[in-house]
Amino acid sequence: MEEKKKIMLAHGGGGRLMADLINRTIVPKFGEGQSVQLTDSAVLDMPAGKLCFTTDSFVVKPLFFNGGDIGKLAVCGTVNDLAVAGAKPVALSLSLILEEGLELEVLERILESIGRTAKNANVPIVTGDTKVVEKGSADSIFINTSGVGVRLDKADPSFARIEPGDAILINGTLGEHGMTIMSQREGLKFQTPLASDCACLHDLTGILYEELGSSVKFMRDPTRGGIAATLNEIAQSARVAVELQEACLPMDKTVQTAADMLGFDLLNIANEGKVLAVVAREDADKALTLWKNHPLGQKAAIIGTITEAADGPLVELVTKIGGRRMVQTPYGRELPRIC
Amino acid sequence: MEEKKKIMLAHGGGGRLMADLINRTIVPKFGEGQSVQLTDSAVLDMPAGKLCFTTDSFVVKPLFFNGGDIGKLAVCGTVNDLAVAGAKPVALSLSLILEEGLELEVLERILESIGRTAKNANVPIVTGDTKVVEKGSADSIFINTSGVGVRLDKADPSFARIEPGDAILINGTLGEHGMTIMSQREGLKFQTPLASDCACLHDLTGILYEELGSSVKFMRDPTRGGIAATLNEIAQSARVAVELQEACLPMDKTVQTAADMLGFDLLNIANEGKVLAVVAREDADKALTLWKNHPLGQKAAIIGTITEAADGPLVELVTKIGGRRMVQTPYGRELPRIC
Repeated sequence: MEEKKKIMLAHGGGGRLMADLINRTIVPKFGEGQSVQLTDSAVLDMPAGKLCFTTDSFVVKPLFFNGGDIGKLAVCGTVNDLAVAGAKPVALSLSLILEEGLELEVLERILESIGRTAKNANVPIVTGDTKVVEKGSADSIFINTSGVGVRLDKADPSFARIEPGDAILINGTLGEHGMTIMSQREGLKFQTPLASDCACLHDLTGILYEELGSSVKFMRDPTRGGIAATLNEIAQSARVAVELQEACLPMDKTVQTAADMLGFDLLNIANEGKVLAVVAREDADKALTLWKNHPLGQKAAIIGTITEAADGPLVELVTKIGGRRMVQTPYGRELPRIC
Repeated sequence: MEEKKKIMLAHGGGGRLMADLINRTIVPKFGEGQSVQLTDSAVLDMPAGKLCFTTDSFVVKPLFFNGGDIGKLAVCGTVNDLAVAGAKPVALSLSLILEEGLELEVLERILESIGRTAKNANVPIVTGDTKVVEKGSADSIFINTSGVGVRLDKADPSFARIEPGDAILINGTLGEHGMTIMSQREGLKFQTPLASDCACLHDLTGILYEELGSSVKFMRDPTRGGIAATLNEIAQSARVAVELQEACLPMDKTVQTAADMLGFDLLNIANEGKVLAVVAREDADKALTLWKNHPLGQKAAIIGTITEAADGPLVELVTKIGGRRMVQTPYGRELPRIC
């Protein structure tokens, strides 16, 4: 039996072995059809305007999960940070921290996923870096993707523009990514398997900015901490209150079951293919229609309203039976290494 | 005795504890005097032109060493990637992967160093990310910095413009960073302590591009793999040969002693405050004078020449006694976790 090829410390030493890894294993996954070479430092032609710049590291465990893997997550996560900021993503960087002993085959599967996701999103990977640490000094692979984009002319998202009366939209059901990861870790099985919602959202956000312009006050992807964390950040930063309608929250039955079994509140659970939008009341229905006509927004809903912060900035949930409860920013212990 | 505060998994959970860490510990280190807020995604006003974009992860061990630390290294490393590409650095991102149990005090020292280095370099940190992994899943802290810059009008570095007759310059002595790290790991002590050359080089590179324009054919910072790796990359990519003069190589006596004791060739050893420049012959002396008048270039020297690749692209060292030997790309095993 042939022994599987593994990453060695020398793969990160800056010498021939590293050059081989980069030229034979990494670059071919991204090279095809790219107009920009993968180099230490990429040079991109940019129009004058507002540049968006973002970064994210990914440490998700397990590396592969139903609906995605660490590579797909790394591309989508950074594309989405640009997307919600109102930018058209232009290029990504890719930085790998590899643990000595990582099977080359695993690395290749991840790189292929990165290449495929980036290609589908039409966002090239233009610059990169590779480091290797001793066995036991990292957990298989950590990935950083940073991204640059150009802000769309019509986009002007800002906490300062959020005001009472604005509607809050989401493009689909809550908590799929987080519950998929947790179920997989706990070994839970369901008749309909859970799948992460991991997706690149720049098309979906772009439509809203293009069609509704300044009516789009703010967007954010509710990842770690779920919509509870994002809505509380909105309330705090915009000095408003948020009223959520429980009856309007799009929920998947199996995801809800998994959350109930594991004792989680889906409001706190990470999404990786969802975006919250705050939209001027008069354009909320238009926004909803635009999203519902998009493959990534079929289950979109208007889930709440911005109100005056009469009692200070807070988020309240109006329950199905008409009660009210405070939705707090989760403390943070819920889900380690979810992304 | 008060127990030292440590990083907990919940610091990466996307909730209140993470917000506290970011708002109380991280942002204050970078906030002062910055025109850009530290956010998920930064928005920067950019002129039309060529954008440079680069990324680097840092896993150096030990975290603190004579002449620097992982934080200073992370800022300088990314600034230097932009600098050698002919760019004026505009902004950096900062992404942290923290191991559960890391002392908050250690994190604060590193963040202060990052803040100080970025401030001195006049390059703001504008966007960031923080992840926490379980104890044993990382080694204290890994840092990714990515950077964006605008290419200087007069800069046009390219392998394609390198030609026989061009001079090769370096701004100072070889191998200080690598030998400092290795000596510290091995517990070697010297009368004159070794210190890393870790420094931001954008001022030094900027001068050359501004003053000599297209005479500057190429620049690169010889980090992992040392000048041996960089010069071989130049030879391969530009299809030329490189002739190095051993007698001209700036060497520090103590660094040389350390290398001899540990059995290393300084040509293969990482630098973190050095830049190699390929300059048209007629402007080589001007370039040397410009660098020698700069604090980071006082020991600058012309160390070799580009020649025809009659026997294929290769790097040769003309020794002090007039012999010749091939300088190969190091294999890679020399120095794990040097940066």
